[in-house]
Amino acid sequence: MKIGLIQQANCSNIEINVNKLKDSIHRCASLGAEIIVMQELHNSLYFCQTEDASMFDIAETIPGYSTETFGQLARDHNIVLIASLFERRAPGLYHNTAVAIERDGSIAGIYRKMHIPDDPAYYEKYYFTPGDLGFRPITTSAGRLGVLICWDQWFPEAARLMAMRGAEILIYPTAIGWETSDTLEEKQRQLEAWQTIQRSHAIANGLPVVAVNRVGLEPDPSGITSGIHFWGNSFIAGQQGEILATLSSEKEDTTVVEIELPRTEKVRRAWPFFRDRRIDAYKAIVQIMD
Amino acid sequence: MKIGLIQQANCSNIEINVNKLKDSIHRCASLGAEIIVMQELHNSLYFCQTEDASMFDIAETIPGYSTETFGQLARDHNIVLIASLFERRAPGLYHNTAVAIERDGSIAGIYRKMHIPDDPAYYEKYYFTPGDLGFRPITTSAGRLGVLICWDQWFPEAARLMAMRGAEILIYPTAIGWETSDTLEEKQRQLEAWQTIQRSHAIANGLPVVAVNRVGLEPDPSGITSGIHFWGNSFIAGQQGEILATLSSEKEDTTVVEIELPRTEKVRRAWPFFRDRRIDAYKAIVQIMD
Repeated sequence: MKIGLIQQANCSNIEINVNKLKDSIHRCASLGAEIIVMQELHNSLYFCQTEDASMFDIAETIPGYSTETFGQLARDHNIVLIASLFERRAPGLYHNTAVAIERDGSIAGIYRKMHIPDDPAYYEKYYFTPGDLGFRPITTSAGRLGVLICWDQWFPEAARLMAMRGAEILIYPTAIGWETSDTLEEKQRQLEAWQTIQRSHAIANGLPVVAVNRVGLEPDPSGITSGIHFWGNSFIAGQQGEILATLSSEKEDTTVVEIELPRTEKVRRAWPFFRDRRIDAYKAIVQIMD
Repeated sequence: MKIGLIQQANCSNIEINVNKLKDSIHRCASLGAEIIVMQELHNSLYFCQTEDASMFDIAETIPGYSTETFGQLARDHNIVLIASLFERRAPGLYHNTAVAIERDGSIAGIYRKMHIPDDPAYYEKYYFTPGDLGFRPITTSAGRLGVLICWDQWFPEAARLMAMRGAEILIYPTAIGWETSDTLEEKQRQLEAWQTIQRSHAIANGLPVVAVNRVGLEPDPSGITSGIHFWGNSFIAGQQGEILATLSSEKEDTTVVEIELPRTEKVRRAWPFFRDRRIDAYKAIVQIMD
């Protein structure tokens, strides 16, 4: 099973961004990718750097422009495609939503981002209503996919629930970067933490993990900050959390990586964490504090 | 706040092992350690390589030999000491238990290992009844300590619950090693996975993590395997999972490391994961699968 990762630097022109994605999808498919994963909100700039009501204009329905455009590509290339959209669910109601598109171009399923961040330059709570679909893998012809989105990556509960519900791969479209004023040491700690926690979901659950991140500097439209330097470093880890491939921190890139799904059972037999969970003692997990 | 880590290679003579621990405690205390952490089952060999009923003879009561011996050392050095014992709770009822000993030599609290492994050469389900105290931090004069033990380290739920209940540091006395017949690559994957998952608990919960592991080769008394090569690599990570110190993979060693507890709030403000947990959607965590 081969998975393609597309790490892109975006501009304000959606058509240009989508045309680049098309080229990359073509490239990954020609290298044998059966699943291709794009980054979070891959059609546009990361518009959450400011709170701007006019940005809701670029939200789209599902089905709609993206599911049709990428549905056609999935069909043309006979691939399962993970898209990430700004979903307009109803007037005034929007989500950050991933769509798994089947090889025939149909929608296999969607995941609405459950954990929504809100920090200076990441004003997502303004734009996105937290998801209401829970943590449910999407069944596709290329396996049961545990699709999560960006901020979800910091929550072991999300990965665990996907695994408990039969996910065979965890997939994180992402848009995360550095504040340019941070020290090099702080930047390094942040990048390592981001890799480490996602690798840990592979380890805890004996599953491959795919993270696809945006790359490049996007200025802050408000001029308050110096913008976000999206750090790329898209990667894929195997069932023991071992890194199988990492992309650049500075450049657009694609890669196609082979993963061995049958290894999951072998790894879980050697490290039988699911055997030993103390479900009698986890009840307080559903509290805020205890 | 300074924490001392004691990584030791043990022999079959408990007196020799305990005398070495005394020397190391003295050394760490003289370097200013306020909390000193010893490895899992630090008095003896790792006796779980075989199932041998005579090994129950070395189990001890709490209070008993170790709490008295190490209580005296805690008092002498004015330190909080994390001990790890083979607890004899009643005839035929044994636990793998950590004890936090106060500066005055009293018992601040105990933690009974909740997740019990059982693999070839780690026959712990034979020796230890799974703990019945849950995941409760122990309040000491050096802070609220989230003491967990070895196999617990693979379960994000345990770390999360300790953090939700006010733990300020996560502490893992450990005994983990390589099977000598594994390839170098497999050994490297295992070691990295062990470091990665524990660093991820620091990240997910914004807490320092201390892991103290045994070192050295201990033969298999049954002769079935070539024994366990305990891999050392005891380490301490800061609140972003950054490594502050790592010990050798081959040698006995001690270190005293300063951690900044006030940094926890700063890190959690920057990465407010506790703000955003979706407690409405985590209920199935208490299932085995879902």
